[in-house]
Amino acid sequence: MRLSRHFLPVTKESPADAQIVSHKLMLRAGMIRQTAAGIYAWLPLGHRVLRKIEQIVREEQDRAGAVELLMPTLQSADLWRQSGRYDAYGPEMLRIKDRHDREILYGPTNEEMITAIFRDSARSYRDLPRTLYHIQWKFRDEVRPRFGVMRGREFLMKDAYSFDMDEAGARHSYNRMFLAYLRTYKRMGLRAIPMQADTGPIGGDLSHEFIVLAPTGESEVFYHTNWEQDRALEVDADDREALQAFVSGLTTDYSATDEKRDEAREAAAGDALKTSRGIEVGHIFYFGTKYSAPMGLKVQGTDGTEVIPHMGSYGIGVSRLMGAIIEASHDDAGIIWPDSVAPYAVGLINMRADDARCAAASDDIYAKLQAAGVETLYDDRDERGGAKFATMDVIGLPWQLVVGPKGLDKGVVELKRRATGEKVELSVDDAIARIVG
Amino acid sequence: MRLSRHFLPVTKESPADAQIVSHKLMLRAGMIRQTAAGIYAWLPLGHRVLRKIEQIVREEQDRAGAVELLMPTLQSADLWRQSGRYDAYGPEMLRIKDRHDREILYGPTNEEMITAIFRDSARSYRDLPRTLYHIQWKFRDEVRPRFGVMRGREFLMKDAYSFDMDEAGARHSYNRMFLAYLRTYKRMGLRAIPMQADTGPIGGDLSHEFIVLAPTGESEVFYHTNWEQDRALEVDADDREALQAFVSGLTTDYSATDEKRDEAREAAAGDALKTSRGIEVGHIFYFGTKYSAPMGLKVQGTDGTEVIPHMGSYGIGVSRLMGAIIEASHDDAGIIWPDSVAPYAVGLINMRADDARCAAASDDIYAKLQAAGVETLYDDRDERGGAKFATMDVIGLPWQLVVGPKGLDKGVVELKRRATGEKVELSVDDAIARIVG
Repeated sequence: MRLSRHFLPVTKESPADAQIVSHKLMLRAGMIRQTAAGIYAWLPLGHRVLRKIEQIVREEQDRAGAVELLMPTLQSADLWRQSGRYDAYGPEMLRIKDRHDREILYGPTNEEMITAIFRDSARSYRDLPRTLYHIQWKFRDEVRPRFGVMRGREFLMKDAYSFDMDEAGARHSYNRMFLAYLRTYKRMGLRAIPMQADTGPIGGDLSHEFIVLAPTGESEVFYHTNWEQDRALEVDADDREALQAFVSGLTTDYSATDEKRDEAREAAAGDALKTSRGIEVGHIFYFGTKYSAPMGLKVQGTDGTEVIPHMGSYGIGVSRLMGAIIEASHDDAGIIWPDSVAPYAVGLINMRADDARCAAASDDIYAKLQAAGVETLYDDRDERGGAKFATMDVIGLPWQLVVGPKGLDKGVVELKRRATGEKVELSVDDAIARIVG
Repeated sequence: MRLSRHFLPVTKESPADAQIVSHKLMLRAGMIRQTAAGIYAWLPLGHRVLRKIEQIVREEQDRAGAVELLMPTLQSADLWRQSGRYDAYGPEMLRIKDRHDREILYGPTNEEMITAIFRDSARSYRDLPRTLYHIQWKFRDEVRPRFGVMRGREFLMKDAYSFDMDEAGARHSYNRMFLAYLRTYKRMGLRAIPMQADTGPIGGDLSHEFIVLAPTGESEVFYHTNWEQDRALEVDADDREALQAFVSGLTTDYSATDEKRDEAREAAAGDALKTSRGIEVGHIFYFGTKYSAPMGLKVQGTDGTEVIPHMGSYGIGVSRLMGAIIEASHDDAGIIWPDSVAPYAVGLINMRADDARCAAASDDIYAKLQAAGVETLYDDRDERGGAKFATMDVIGLPWQLVVGPKGLDKGVVELKRRATGEKVELSVDDAIARIVG
């Protein structure tokens, strides 16, 4: 993409009302624009990252055997009355009346709707187990939205729902998602620590939050230093015992949110106990028949008797993850995107747009990068080099490829790695080879 | 994907309240589920088609030089007061109050929001021309939602907005989209006829609807038989004059909705005049400064004076297109997907899931199809062959590949083309080669 034809409103100023670094940087990098309290438009650069994060989430859900569908944003109040949650849910639910005065709401989550959909189709044990998921906009009317997309009101969430014939099956589905979540975060360059959690308005008796450590996190967390090590995530997820052993082994090391601290385990951890603040980037629940029973979901068991399926639900904040990634990966000059979610792999900078030789060479390199399948943002604008460098640093593309008259004299371009600042002079072909990896 | 692990609730019965064939078939094929009046969940099969249609729309927008972003579903009422449309828009606008009693709404379209976003960033003629688009859920509170996703309340729309320095530039942007729309429909196997249209609540003085002919269409249309010919869509869209000549040439042939009939041109068409019913699948508008002027969008011109940009907007109903494609492509047995939007390219049918040899051969073919990159739905269930054929016919995958004991004796499988019913016996490798094309 040529920057001269893009819509990338990068700004120098850091807006006064942005309190945390991810919010500031997303605004400065022209990724988002607030359009109402806690509601954001995703400008082209932010939209690209959102789609990359979404796609990683999707691929790991598919890998875990979950099946994608898409439920609407608006739901009928009657559906929520079937579970008894319509009156129980607080003012965070956005309640709406349509032109016929029917009560509807903007879905904050989808347990009721997915239970109704599955209920109206599933007949017997052959239709289970199933895990269904969707990636859809949700709304929670936060009393005080803040921190940009980290605590917005309209946000993109992946929510999955599992249906099993019994508790043992449901626990296996839960463990599958536990593994899928760790794999998802790892692919984005994040280390997320699972922590036992309260179940809150979803209900149930088994639940984990996944927490990314960051000084700006909303809650205090406690964990064993072993969690700072990189974990291998290789296990056969189809093997119930092996997967349970993997999850049990992993959770041997202590980790807890403020509400779930365990004095004895903290004492046992001794000097290995650490504390930090954390950002919640996922939450999974097993809640048995909490929704299936009141909503009349029943299927025929292998022996012909009726069985009420056991369910779980599994959420990842897709839009929130973007903030978490930036909190975990930035420096004073701007964002440092992990390759897996970067909006473009490389920023191609023509240092002298007014020089015909530089422009021709840059156009040629741009064509070569495109032919090599490299996602490229090409700064072909007639601007000073310093401004171009600052733009590339703040938007944080993994590579910068600089074309200038001196380099062309020598037959080289400069390749800079954003994360390390390392710069090398290379031929164009060698530079492209380095980027492609 | 193995059908034994899928969620594909195909039904035999045609629901009583579904009046048109696309609605009936989408319900029978397990593609959608109504969750409230005019609101649908997209079950896995429907969701896959929705994503394919969306991707074609996206690719043709990108090809036309439009830049993608994503605006939120909810908007503030104040934004719509800036253009004067908040009070003018009728009861189709879903008006909402949040917990702080602030007036918001579920966006039916985004002229106001995109104008505000562009206004807050664009400074000079160097920031124009630009066309920005997004693909997002919209809500229009239809008084009587019907025809399934064809006239739903919550629907997925691609809407693009162009910003130009003057009317001539805006007309070129309009022509670019005119061409992009024709290319989009053609890739989906649809022939859509552009027709001059009234501008309605969007306003403006140049507008075309794109209409697909179908007996179930909502409106009567009139056109010259020349429109039934296939049109070449090759023209250099960067060349203003060439593109204008292309558009002018194309629209020489008469076409009109009921409101825009022209007696003289109809008389001139003589026997070549035809009438039909049609489904609107796109609508484009040029409206000058209707939004930019009241909302204060101004940029510096090349001579330093202030210029109010000229705008246009361009909508395609992404979810509605699915209905239109089915209306245009089905038979008594079910849907016939064009290859470009089919949820899977091939349905692999194991005729005898209880036969170890058939199961092993089918598993092997499934692995080969996946290795060849062919999107495959594998019916590995223990069901009668007749039921499997009926399922594949109703869901309409372009190819069916049938594995049975008699064929295996001869070393062949049966390959059926859904559109023509043509069946051939081939070796597995030849069948895969035929599918890959």
